[in-house]
Amino acid sequence: MPQHSREADAPADVFAWIDEAERAREQAGLVRTLRPRSAASPLLDLASNDYLGLSRHPETVRGACAAAEEWGAGATGARLVTGTTALHAELEQELADFCGFEAALVLSSGYAANLAAVTALGGRGALVASDSGNHASIVDGCRLSRAETAVVPHADPEAARKTLAAHTGRALLVTDSVFSVDGDAAPLAGYAEACRARGAALVVDDAHGLGVLGEGGRGALHAAGLAGAPGVVATLTLSKSLGSQGGAVLGPAKVIRHLVNTARTFIFDTGLAPAAAGGALAALRLLRREPERAARAREVAALLHGRLTAAGLASARPDAAVVSVRAPSAAAALRWAADCREAGLSVGCFRPPSVPDGVSRLRLTARADLTGEEIGRAVAVILRTAPAGAADLP
Amino acid sequence: MPQHSREADAPADVFAWIDEAERAREQAGLVRTLRPRSAASPLLDLASNDYLGLSRHPETVRGACAAAEEWGAGATGARLVTGTTALHAELEQELADFCGFEAALVLSSGYAANLAAVTALGGRGALVASDSGNHASIVDGCRLSRAETAVVPHADPEAARKTLAAHTGRALLVTDSVFSVDGDAAPLAGYAEACRARGAALVVDDAHGLGVLGEGGRGALHAAGLAGAPGVVATLTLSKSLGSQGGAVLGPAKVIRHLVNTARTFIFDTGLAPAAAGGALAALRLLRREPERAARAREVAALLHGRLTAAGLASARPDAAVVSVRAPSAAAALRWAADCREAGLSVGCFRPPSVPDGVSRLRLTARADLTGEEIGRAVAVILRTAPAGAADLP
Ligand SMILES: Cc1ncc(COP(=O)(O)O)c(C=O)c1O
Ligand SMILES: Cc1ncc(COP(=O)(O)O)c(C=O)c1O
Repeated sequence: MPQHSREADAPADVFAWIDEAERAREQAGLVRTLRPRSAASPLLDLASNDYLGLSRHPETVRGACAAAEEWGAGATGARLVTGTTALHAELEQELADFCGFEAALVLSSGYAANLAAVTALGGRGALVASDSGNHASIVDGCRLSRAETAVVPHADPEAARKTLAAHTGRALLVTDSVFSVDGDAAPLAGYAEACRARGAALVVDDAHGLGVLGEGGRGALHAAGLAGAPGVVATLTLSKSLGSQGGAVLGPAKVIRHLVNTARTFIFDTGLAPAAAGGALAALRLLRREPERAARAREVAALLHGRLTAAGLASARPDAAVVSVRAPSAAAALRWAADCREAGLSVGCFRPPSVPDGVSRLRLTARADLTGEEIGRAVAVILRTAPAGAADLP
Repeated sequence: MPQHSREADAPADVFAWIDEAERAREQAGLVRTLRPRSAASPLLDLASNDYLGLSRHPETVRGACAAAEEWGAGATGARLVTGTTALHAELEQELADFCGFEAALVLSSGYAANLAAVTALGGRGALVASDSGNHASIVDGCRLSRAETAVVPHADPEAARKTLAAHTGRALLVTDSVFSVDGDAAPLAGYAEACRARGAALVVDDAHGLGVLGEGGRGALHAAGLAGAPGVVATLTLSKSLGSQGGAVLGPAKVIRHLVNTARTFIFDTGLAPAAAGGALAALRLLRREPERAARAREVAALLHGRLTAAGLASARPDAAVVSVRAPSAAAALRWAADCREAGLSVGCFRPPSVPDGVSRLRLTARADLTGEEIGRAVAVILRTAPAGAADLP
């Protein structure tokens, strides 16, 4: 309950400018509102990033609870003060081991992990070449890094090579492994070659690759034979395939030590909550035991894509577990998603400004635990609710 | 296990520059290393930010577990996609209500909350006046905001007023309510007056005020009669007094709507894990029921400060639950903290570059649940291990 009523003081509203911004959003049909879901939602979920269906898996939940019971609900401090538990250390060891890197550092989110990696490895005088399709957290990392940032054309190793060659100081190339909107994979081999040729570091955000790509879900870098390669650093999130919350940076031990000593989003942030660390660790161990989950997520994606394109919808072949379907307009995409929802299916809807190319689309995630019946139902709903013109898109 | 051995390829180490940085840190005695704690640590904790001792309280832990069991270990997506549960909405409502604001938005950390508030309310053409003692996350928010940033002298409303007056566009003043290193309080009334005079917004990070200051721990803004005032926005962390993880922004409903639509660390980040939300909500309800916990934290701080200064140590009167004790040098502070630890007491040690003024100190946190015996033991250890010269500091 506000202590102050509106009229009490301050004659002029210092936030009047927000009214205008709101009006502009309304006129453009771009207002976003939060829609809380209930725990027993009857919707079929093709919108989350819970690729392996592990978020509600009993083992993951048990891991989260056991950690809260043993360690408390919070880490109680920054990692360098009281916020590092033996559980954090265990998770770091197992993540590094699984993905094929020397060392790992866990942060409170994937967003914080990207900010940490890009700022600690960039810095004044350095060049950061950043793929134009990169996630917002990488873009923000570039802005914070005080490095010279060069946005390079999407998925174009030759362009990256030229950009890197034009700079003489320290350089790094940063890319998503799987781009979050369209689900296409980065040309990691080409990017790695461009970096090797120039003596540049390669930083890869494997948020959408972990658990889906590579042997048993070891990620895109492992799939490309680049895990643990000198000069290569990975960032991860624990919030997608591992069904929890948190992020990590993986790389040579000295890079990790450097982050511990310099990365502001690590040093000045409370450690990841034990429940999140415990949940992610349990999910990771489950994935180790049941490596087929990763292949199943890819298979579900291929099934969804195959059926939707066979019916004429515009969807690029998925490289991981994200299937993107083009819509004729932002308004059409929004209505399409709403119609799906009405019909019991939850899908993602990406519109400007969240889409780098301005093209609105539905975003479907292929959960490994979807049954054949569920896939059939999802496809039927999407086709039945498709807007006019959706089948004629390029 | 790395896929690549060191020797396999890449003749030149692209991270060779890190070796130099490490050597420089070593020479300066400023190497930070992670020290995992065990769940059954015998240390008496005066280093965490668990001000009310709620992180391991059975109700908080039960809240965290119940949430994981009901909702899963993760939120499964961004808040605008699948990541908003009824639990998030409930927490937002109760936080706003408790602290006296119209609306609230929960984010994955206090760091993310500050980035969100400062970037969404700053922006190109705006002026952000930022107290020189502000937390790193506010500083990063200023850098990301693309606003003109003016760092204003610490705790100086008159200087802030002049800075704000020198700019004609949209403006905001940002400050910690309680500064994290020294534990001193910001002059909120003076800052609010400076903002009112100019039509500027006031953004206050109440990370160290929530649960400690104000009636029943409603925070520094409530204590100052500014909660819910027009033009005033608060940011919070759920990781200190509420013993969990996460952050929040509190303010007028339209400011919150604006953040939902524009704040990148909100839009492009996975929702806070249900366990963290559930833990924080349980702690909040406990605090509502036992409001005396807040006053007790302040009382413990006064006791610690009184006994340490009576013995000649240099410590400013605490305004909240942080007691800072000056050390003669960075090396002395480090040894002092290590000696305390040796004697069974965990204290914080702040050294450059984490201290704005370059002065190293011990940082003690006054937990509300410390007993008289524990306070006595803590004081005895700190005095016994004090370095030569600690009693002669200004
Ligand atoms: C590619 C990519 N990187 C990073 C993130 C941020 O991770 P987190 O949600 O754990 O902060 C996301 C999405 O949330 C993402 O899609
Ligand atoms: C003043 C202040 N603001 C913000 C934060 C960040 O909050 P969190 O740890 O929840 O990210 C902290 C400390 O962690 C802090 O001390």
